[in-house]
Amino acid sequence: MKMIKTALGIDIGGTNTEVGLVDKNGKCLQIQRFSTAADRPFVEFMAQLEKAIALITHNGEIKPFAAGVGAPGANSETGRLEDPENFSWGSVELAGIMQKKFGIPVKVINDAKAAALGEMKYGQALNLKNFVQITLGTGLGSSIIIDGKLVEGHDGLAGELGHIKVRESTRQCSCGKIGCLETYASANGLCRTVFELLSRNKTDSKLREYSYEQINSQMVFELAQNGDELAIEAFKYTGTVLGETLAGVISLLNPQAILFAGGLTSAGNYLFEPLIQSIEKNLLNMHKDTVDILISDQRINYAVSGAASLVFNTNGKHK
Amino acid sequence: MKMIKTALGIDIGGTNTEVGLVDKNGKCLQIQRFSTAADRPFVEFMAQLEKAIALITHNGEIKPFAAGVGAPGANSETGRLEDPENFSWGSVELAGIMQKKFGIPVKVINDAKAAALGEMKYGQALNLKNFVQITLGTGLGSSIIIDGKLVEGHDGLAGELGHIKVRESTRQCSCGKIGCLETYASANGLCRTVFELLSRNKTDSKLREYSYEQINSQMVFELAQNGDELAIEAFKYTGTVLGETLAGVISLLNPQAILFAGGLTSAGNYLFEPLIQSIEKNLLNMHKDTVDILISDQRINYAVSGAASLVFNTNGKHK
Repeated sequence: MKMIKTALGIDIGGTNTEVGLVDKNGKCLQIQRFSTAADRPFVEFMAQLEKAIALITHNGEIKPFAAGVGAPGANSETGRLEDPENFSWGSVELAGIMQKKFGIPVKVINDAKAAALGEMKYGQALNLKNFVQITLGTGLGSSIIIDGKLVEGHDGLAGELGHIKVRESTRQCSCGKIGCLETYASANGLCRTVFELLSRNKTDSKLREYSYEQINSQMVFELAQNGDELAIEAFKYTGTVLGETLAGVISLLNPQAILFAGGLTSAGNYLFEPLIQSIEKNLLNMHKDTVDILISDQRINYAVSGAASLVFNTNGKHK
Repeated sequence: MKMIKTALGIDIGGTNTEVGLVDKNGKCLQIQRFSTAADRPFVEFMAQLEKAIALITHNGEIKPFAAGVGAPGANSETGRLEDPENFSWGSVELAGIMQKKFGIPVKVINDAKAAALGEMKYGQALNLKNFVQITLGTGLGSSIIIDGKLVEGHDGLAGELGHIKVRESTRQCSCGKIGCLETYASANGLCRTVFELLSRNKTDSKLREYSYEQINSQMVFELAQNGDELAIEAFKYTGTVLGETLAGVISLLNPQAILFAGGLTSAGNYLFEPLIQSIEKNLLNMHKDTVDILISDQRINYAVSGAASLVFNTNGKHK
């Protein structure tokens, strides 16, 4: 019996890390998840990662030939994580350290780009040549694909949609600027909008009972489903601001689709109805109805298979 | 003596049309200019074009093998002008009509894209692989080059930077929307800013003596040079708004340069100082100092050679 050739696909997120054993078709044969604990030292993360890899390789019985890693702040050229926001690790030689520890070649890529690669090769964006991928998680990640290729930019820094300024002198962003899209269109941005609306409106709302520390996007969604007007309004505002920016992106790049992933997409029409309205309102007539709005399969983390695809070339051989 | 192989390069602008006899190196051997008269019937334009071509071909003695045309609203696929704004021609089968009339193959392209092609092949953007070209004329034209290729988008509609919404509920745009970048960052937008400032401030200014019909961007520039504070302020505001949007474009695409062309660039530092300040202010730290600001040679209309380059392939043969 011939052994199936497998690679590790690893998605390091701000909250959780997923480690998958992936074949050359992007199928995930085994998966382990653990808490990233980004506020703890990097060595603790490495210990957790080692445990997870031991589990999915049956203590080394299965031998993945290489690993692809998606992580915030990852630099494909150097293999480093460049002091990612919300992580206490500083800059880390991730590829080098992992290579030494696990004895296999390691490639790293920005997490949003890993997700876009996965969607393009195995997911909702199969056969799409021009699209924008947006991950609405704790923050806002994005990638651009033009003519079937990930746009890297001149220095590998393209795709920072989350840090486009969308409002004058308002919300502080973790990047140090003011009014970035991410401070509105993300799980965290939604909660900030709730507090802005609480301060501005007199609407009755269950949300008045929670502190800033207690609130999260899932709660806002559940309250919206129960008819809480302020919760519904918060999603509407989020969709409206995001839609304005995306209309600009469509004017600029004329993509065939925008593909949304991330936890916030589970809000469905509470988010997407105002979002689509806002896009349409801000487009030139010639751009109207040119774009499909796609939502990723919530059950599958395509960043895992996208990261693994880095180490498979089209022949399934390692290069 | 071997005849030099030449093509016609034609740039149809809202105000003037230029017709050049261009060799395969983009050199313009002859040039004629006439008023487009976009408000008059298309047949009158064709009569003018015929005259200009007769002049530069010495009444047919020189035989260009093909023509490339840059024009607003041009669709490369169909060869049509699709009812360009500020033109009374409606939709016109430009390539087909010209082919019949002049007996040579004709290709058309959007004017902003013709300019970018010309700059990339023969001008300031020689050897640049990732840049954004912005023409600040009556309106705002733009093109994006990624990995050495013009970004067309899924339907050939990419590059409409001028119609990104930059301000809430303010200026009406000729496209029917509100608050488009073009209503701020263009010769026309500058004049609108002058009138906004005149209405808002009490500043003494020579500009109070002119009507909206009388004013133009050249006058505002000359007054700025004479120290007119309101004129200087108008350029500052124009640069600031444009810079905010360009910071977003840089975040998204990480180009190595932004190349400015068009009449408004002659304002020099009145425009570019606040523009660069505004870009820097709105960029992520990692994007700072990654972009060169380039200004096109005001003496050369690269759209003419860019349009002609459409019909020369890399071997100088017609394809």
